[in-house]
Amino acid sequence: MVGSVAFDTLKTPFGERQKILGGAATYFSLSASYFTDVRVVAVVGEDFTAENEDVMKKRGVDTRGIQHAKGKTFHWTGEYGENVNEAKTLNTELNVFETFEPSIPAEYNNSDFLFLANIDPVLQKRVRDNMQKVKLVGGDTMNYWITGHRANLDKMLKGVDILLINDGEAKMLADDNSLPRAARKVMEMGPRALVIKHGEYGATIFFRDHEFGAGDHPFRAPAMPIDEVRDPTGAGDSFAGGFMGYVASQGEISRRVLRHAMFYGSVMGSFAVERFGTERLQSLTREEIDQRFNTFRELTHLD
Amino acid sequence: MVGSVAFDTLKTPFGERQKILGGAATYFSLSASYFTDVRVVAVVGEDFTAENEDVMKKRGVDTRGIQHAKGKTFHWTGEYGENVNEAKTLNTELNVFETFEPSIPAEYNNSDFLFLANIDPVLQKRVRDNMQKVKLVGGDTMNYWITGHRANLDKMLKGVDILLINDGEAKMLADDNSLPRAARKVMEMGPRALVIKHGEYGATIFFRDHEFGAGDHPFRAPAMPIDEVRDPTGAGDSFAGGFMGYVASQGEISRRVLRHAMFYGSVMGSFAVERFGTERLQSLTREEIDQRFNTFRELTHLD
Repeated sequence: MVGSVAFDTLKTPFGERQKILGGAATYFSLSASYFTDVRVVAVVGEDFTAENEDVMKKRGVDTRGIQHAKGKTFHWTGEYGENVNEAKTLNTELNVFETFEPSIPAEYNNSDFLFLANIDPVLQKRVRDNMQKVKLVGGDTMNYWITGHRANLDKMLKGVDILLINDGEAKMLADDNSLPRAARKVMEMGPRALVIKHGEYGATIFFRDHEFGAGDHPFRAPAMPIDEVRDPTGAGDSFAGGFMGYVASQGEISRRVLRHAMFYGSVMGSFAVERFGTERLQSLTREEIDQRFNTFRELTHLD
Repeated sequence: MVGSVAFDTLKTPFGERQKILGGAATYFSLSASYFTDVRVVAVVGEDFTAENEDVMKKRGVDTRGIQHAKGKTFHWTGEYGENVNEAKTLNTELNVFETFEPSIPAEYNNSDFLFLANIDPVLQKRVRDNMQKVKLVGGDTMNYWITGHRANLDKMLKGVDILLINDGEAKMLADDNSLPRAARKVMEMGPRALVIKHGEYGATIFFRDHEFGAGDHPFRAPAMPIDEVRDPTGAGDSFAGGFMGYVASQGEISRRVLRHAMFYGSVMGSFAVERFGTERLQSLTREEIDQRFNTFRELTHLD
């Protein structure tokens, strides 16, 4: 996976934290590490400590692709109000991320799966072009690239098999307020399947006809009704990590596997928000994960 | 069931309609009529025609409880913008509804199930008190009663087994932004179970511990990803009709039955919004309903 490592300064109705370890690469890697071997490509600054890196290493994540650059690590400052689905960005210091040029270690070349977290689509495409042998490419993006870097994004989307974005991004990308119609339009841009995340209401995967199996029926995974969402940061990246990690752990990429991956994505997202930062994702067991998977099944299955 | 019969004048992104037949009683009755026998208590004015009443009669609905009063029928005028989940009320002419005094025909006395649609909680309670022998009472309410008639509403809630409201109403009623916590608080006010409707994201039923079965696991039914929601009016009442109608058609009131009822509620809501007014609910077949039930199952079930 390629993405950002960051320090996050944030405030939620449950408290505040200064410069805690975050970033899509961190959340994704920790989440996926419960299902498969993960290799990260990212950049950090001189303020990124060995202890920070150990958070990933302890989960067996291969961090050889993390470049150490002069300067400071990407720093995001934001807050969440009563509606925890919406982050308000107060400040973004790109720092070393501004000149990030992803470089893929030779040892990563035999990877079967690739996830392009939300970074400049020019960089996403470059990484994707350098990984021609992968079986499946997952990707993410955000409003900033949709509105301001559309031509580059369009090129990137042609190389993505499964795009994972939220409701607002899907509607904006397709310029259509109907989700199923927006989904079809986005899939015409490249992706063979589209995961739309609905925050506290779960997520839906739409398939292009005859891709990954027969028919074009979507599939919806619930989110967990959680009493206290302490810190929603990284929920989407944790979802993506559970989703891609589970797919990578399976022998085939079928609709059935993708349905289960939707559940595992939701499960990992639900753990991530229980505590601040990556705390909860550092110390899970596969047993806890499968227990929650069963809770999700009970939440949605008739019999 | 007791509720409003109305004429609706409305505008959606798909068109406009003048004074078409609507009201909670109409949507609920038509929807429930596909599952069980329905008896209505309501009031209409002199502008309510035999053709209007035939819409219900053709579906076998017992309309002997519909009072014909001097004056005009309740008239609602509203519109929906791009976000079809939110109706904007432009005008409300209560007309004969202003002095509505529900009167229950003697022939209704052996009813086993009662649904109190969204009307003045004083009237809801009066009807409920007159139907002591029913096995299960369902109910609805809205912001207007929650904020302005709280004492009356609290008394009404003590007599309701299952309350069906939406996200905003649940949060307002409990004064709590966490849905699961709000659900528990609402259930402390009387209801043994609470159905919270999430619009295009489906609905969740929460149970009080040891009510209708063991445990306190909620259950979530999806909504249909629909390309074109032509007219969202009556979706909630159609949901309630499918939900209560299905429960009434079963020999027991168990968690399993209630889970299936959640699906049938969603199914009926999804049909209602496909066309303007009650059009789609007038001409369904049980086969179409069960076919869509299976689509909902495919949408959510892993295997």
